[in-house]
Amino acid sequence: MSTDEIRLARAYLSRVAEPPAVALAGFIAEVGPVRAAELVRSGEVPVAVDSETSARRAVDQAERDLEVAAKVGGRLLVPEDDEWPRWPFNALTIAAANGLRCGLEPLALWVRGEFSLASLTERAVAVVGSRASSGYGQHVAGEFGYGLAEAGVTVVSGAAYGIDGAAHRGALTAGGLTIAVLACGVDVAYPAGHRALLERIPSQGLLVSEYPPTHTPARHRFLTRNRLIAALAEGTVVVEAGQRSGAKNTAASTAALGRVLMAVPGPITSSSSSGCHELLRSGSALPVTSVAEIIESTGRLGVDLVEANRKLDTGPPQGDAMRVFEALGLMSGHSPDMISVESGVELPRVRALLPQLELAGLAERVETGWKRSQNESWRGDT
Amino acid sequence: MSTDEIRLARAYLSRVAEPPAVALAGFIAEVGPVRAAELVRSGEVPVAVDSETSARRAVDQAERDLEVAAKVGGRLLVPEDDEWPRWPFNALTIAAANGLRCGLEPLALWVRGEFSLASLTERAVAVVGSRASSGYGQHVAGEFGYGLAEAGVTVVSGAAYGIDGAAHRGALTAGGLTIAVLACGVDVAYPAGHRALLERIPSQGLLVSEYPPTHTPARHRFLTRNRLIAALAEGTVVVEAGQRSGAKNTAASTAALGRVLMAVPGPITSSSSSGCHELLRSGSALPVTSVAEIIESTGRLGVDLVEANRKLDTGPPQGDAMRVFEALGLMSGHSPDMISVESGVELPRVRALLPQLELAGLAERVETGWKRSQNESWRGDT
Repeated sequence: MSTDEIRLARAYLSRVAEPPAVALAGFIAEVGPVRAAELVRSGEVPVAVDSETSARRAVDQAERDLEVAAKVGGRLLVPEDDEWPRWPFNALTIAAANGLRCGLEPLALWVRGEFSLASLTERAVAVVGSRASSGYGQHVAGEFGYGLAEAGVTVVSGAAYGIDGAAHRGALTAGGLTIAVLACGVDVAYPAGHRALLERIPSQGLLVSEYPPTHTPARHRFLTRNRLIAALAEGTVVVEAGQRSGAKNTAASTAALGRVLMAVPGPITSSSSSGCHELLRSGSALPVTSVAEIIESTGRLGVDLVEANRKLDTGPPQGDAMRVFEALGLMSGHSPDMISVESGVELPRVRALLPQLELAGLAERVETGWKRSQNESWRGDT
Repeated sequence: MSTDEIRLARAYLSRVAEPPAVALAGFIAEVGPVRAAELVRSGEVPVAVDSETSARRAVDQAERDLEVAAKVGGRLLVPEDDEWPRWPFNALTIAAANGLRCGLEPLALWVRGEFSLASLTERAVAVVGSRASSGYGQHVAGEFGYGLAEAGVTVVSGAAYGIDGAAHRGALTAGGLTIAVLACGVDVAYPAGHRALLERIPSQGLLVSEYPPTHTPARHRFLTRNRLIAALAEGTVVVEAGQRSGAKNTAASTAALGRVLMAVPGPITSSSSSGCHELLRSGSALPVTSVAEIIESTGRLGVDLVEANRKLDTGPPQGDAMRVFEALGLMSGHSPDMISVESGVELPRVRALLPQLELAGLAERVETGWKRSQNESWRGDT
């Protein structure tokens, strides 16, 4: 089975079924994507799959969709690709297994830009909020986008007016990385006023969508899209959200997926912050007031590592952080996989610890992976 | 032993010892206030008591202090009085027994105004914050002071510039009740710019101080005073606090005394709110954005009762609230004591439930106590 065949099959299926297509996903898992596409095309599928696919199964324009995407620098990512964000999407699979509506891994993802989605999401935080944002909210979103990007964190958002746009722009201004997850095709300029922003993002990140080229957004697609924003980031910061903001939906997905949910306090006199205050008061979200607090809160071992960082003044890192540190290359970089094997610390934990060691001035990224920082002042006895 | 003798003895002791005088408090508990005053006067006391009292034991101007207080409408409250806030101060006694520095009941309290301190503190919330407050903070403090007072809650604060003053003024404007706990004598206009405010408060509440007339404030007295603000209220709302605000000290006392600590979110771009955000982020304080949320949070059975309130649309109050409701007078008011006996629900719980039943439209206050509301739409079967 060639990757091209799989890609064509999934391109076809991504246009046929409106996400989230639960029965189809199960069917693909059972018979494989190529066979699934054949059977969907001929209508020889179980009733549940049929009801998800019958309306559009005759629309077979996979090759054309791939061409249209390619014309704007886009391509189709499939779960069989190396750059598929397996780890971030694991939460979706678990949620789906638990019957949560926010679950279900996408069948494929249309992306625009040359970066690897897996790499971009190794260290990513979502910054979301109302379209009807205040000057305060836009200022904060811009500052957070800038600060996170500067700290090497990819800023994930939804490219909407207001908070989303400010967060993306902040990341771009910092020369950092950003991902816009869309509710329409990656070739569609929506919202129209963000055409220039959407054109620019692929040079410093990716546009990502479950929907094939030329698909236009619809209300339910925004809601479906929101789970991907939540899943691709280690945590979501809600900067501003009124009572009816879609950001509250992203917040709900974030919490349901077990990601860190954060909210920015604001003036209690501003209705733009009322959704954030509700999240804080219910205890669903952690208040964050700075980039440093976001990073502290989202490291998968955030709390441990802040303590480790504090201890660095007088001594070595502790526990797993210590083991990861010791497994770092001295002269050349080691890959997270190598470090995981060397240290005996599981890979996701290694991935979470490395940026924290970097922040603590103990590790640095080089082309080949991670090595001990040259400025690292602490020298272990071991 | 006449009350006059006790009052004179405690007036003397309140000037002799600088609060908190732990050894003296123990000595009074042991030998009684009158005998303690005699022994302090003659210097025949244990070493620990001597070190707290020797410097000023010759300063015997109890009668004069009482006269000076009387001239400005003041008097001395002693623990032997009916209006001594026994229940609120219970937390201080417990804290002292646990060796907490914020503990220790005062030996006596100088008050100015005609209200009963015990009655005023049956339903009281402290609203505190920085002197260096922002326009936003003063607006919020004023609104909260107004709204709480309007809801029949006494507003407790410290009469300082900024947040404190705005909270008192809000309560006064609403025609409600307010208590200013001072770090100086109740006849001393401090801060000077609040002279008019301090003159007005006794007509709608009380000025309260551990310090005898003419005493001027000092830094340590503000800190000692803060525990009384925390103790006299069911909860403390920190409206604004910078990194060095004394409000953070009141917040610490509030938490140590087991009272509800609340903080108001504000713009993260404002340093005036940074102390509040710190309290929220550490989980020490609950975020509050409205008077309704403060009332919901401070009812000693707040959570239960919000639920009870919600259920009122379709049915009767639940549990203790139901029992208290049933013990209410139908035609005439019953005192909380009577209701406690009648319902078998302990007095503090009755006191916490009554205002909540009032909010739910089921009970109303009349001159003689509490009765069922005439508008109360639900009629039980019992």
